[in-house]
Amino acid sequence: MDLRICVPLGALLEGSLAAIAAVGLPVEPLRDAGRRLIVEVPGGPTYITTRPTDVPTYVESGAADIGIVGRDVLLEREPDVYELADLGFGGCTMSWCTPAGDDPTALAIERFGVVRVATKYVRCAERFFEGTGRKAEIVKVNGSVELAPLVGLADGIVDLVATGRTLRENGLVEREVLFESTARLIANRVSHKLRADVLDGLVRAFEAGGA
Amino acid sequence: MDLRICVPLGALLEGSLAAIAAVGLPVEPLRDAGRRLIVEVPGGPTYITTRPTDVPTYVESGAADIGIVGRDVLLEREPDVYELADLGFGGCTMSWCTPAGDDPTALAIERFGVVRVATKYVRCAERFFEGTGRKAEIVKVNGSVELAPLVGLADGIVDLVATGRTLRENGLVEREVLFESTARLIANRVSHKLRADVLDGLVRAFEAGGA
Repeated sequence: MDLRICVPLGALLEGSLAAIAAVGLPVEPLRDAGRRLIVEVPGGPTYITTRPTDVPTYVESGAADIGIVGRDVLLEREPDVYELADLGFGGCTMSWCTPAGDDPTALAIERFGVVRVATKYVRCAERFFEGTGRKAEIVKVNGSVELAPLVGLADGIVDLVATGRTLRENGLVEREVLFESTARLIANRVSHKLRADVLDGLVRAFEAGGA
Repeated sequence: MDLRICVPLGALLEGSLAAIAAVGLPVEPLRDAGRRLIVEVPGGPTYITTRPTDVPTYVESGAADIGIVGRDVLLEREPDVYELADLGFGGCTMSWCTPAGDDPTALAIERFGVVRVATKYVRCAERFFEGTGRKAEIVKVNGSVELAPLVGLADGIVDLVATGRTLRENGLVEREVLFESTARLIANRVSHKLRADVLDGLVRAFEAGGA
């Protein structure tokens, strides 16, 4: 088959394996991979496992033909790939969250003219605040975004919210939803042309499996 | 004391705790913190634990007064902070590494005019290739950089090398060293002015402890 599939580690991994298994591709070798990041299945696909944010990079470059990635990463990165299907799993929202109590957003803008926003999703946050006519100073953080308002680094955060547990544990509440996200199937533009038969069949199978 | 200290999780955590303990500050509450990212020690400092790459962000903004961070992160981020001391631990090199065998760098440039470089350290890599008169296309990846040459995403990687184990496991060899890195003590510029006494004393203690 010689198809290269980029699979995200982390929160979308289990759903990705289930979706791949549902279209009839072997996933057991991937479960047994241990520390290996590349798994070649004889007579089947080659799996490349990466961080979720790296999936578009591998697919855009052609290092992988197709990949599974959250809509959040696509909206942040805007990679030059085809988005072929909504796989339905991994549902969450990209949300603007601030400490519980009076919403500090209006207050911060009233006092200082600007609200300070910590996020991993700089472009999503910029578009959101620009689009709603509010001035924001975006602070890029790479991990534990929920920490930022607690120590005065920011007035609030733009981050993915799934169960809401992290928010509750840190005294934060969801104020506004930027967009909803689920896992998407993406394809390299050249692969999509050269291997239309294989990919079209897969897309139909993924759509049937996800329904 | 009311001093806020930003401590990096990951590879520099143990060395940071040892260095902090060596200057006489209590670190046991930090060891017992579990999932908590903020640890206030009554009568002592407040510790904020973050990803290594977020330490400069917290210190630059004043959310933390001082922090411990690798020189690699400082050279990549160039934050507006004071670098007060070389703490000596966490030694490693930032290196240009490619697959074993003939060095593909010259070959790639000869064939395509450009070498493709995967890295988390985009600015460090850009400066290195510009400074040595070679054209490079930098591909930003966020994790498992060593994977990139194996699947054709890049000709080689610019990454931190400590023991070299990851390189060996992936058939890569170190070709050139960009710079050496160790853990550094950094301070917020305003904190450094307002709290010169406390910080000067700490710097002397850190330097004595690290010697």
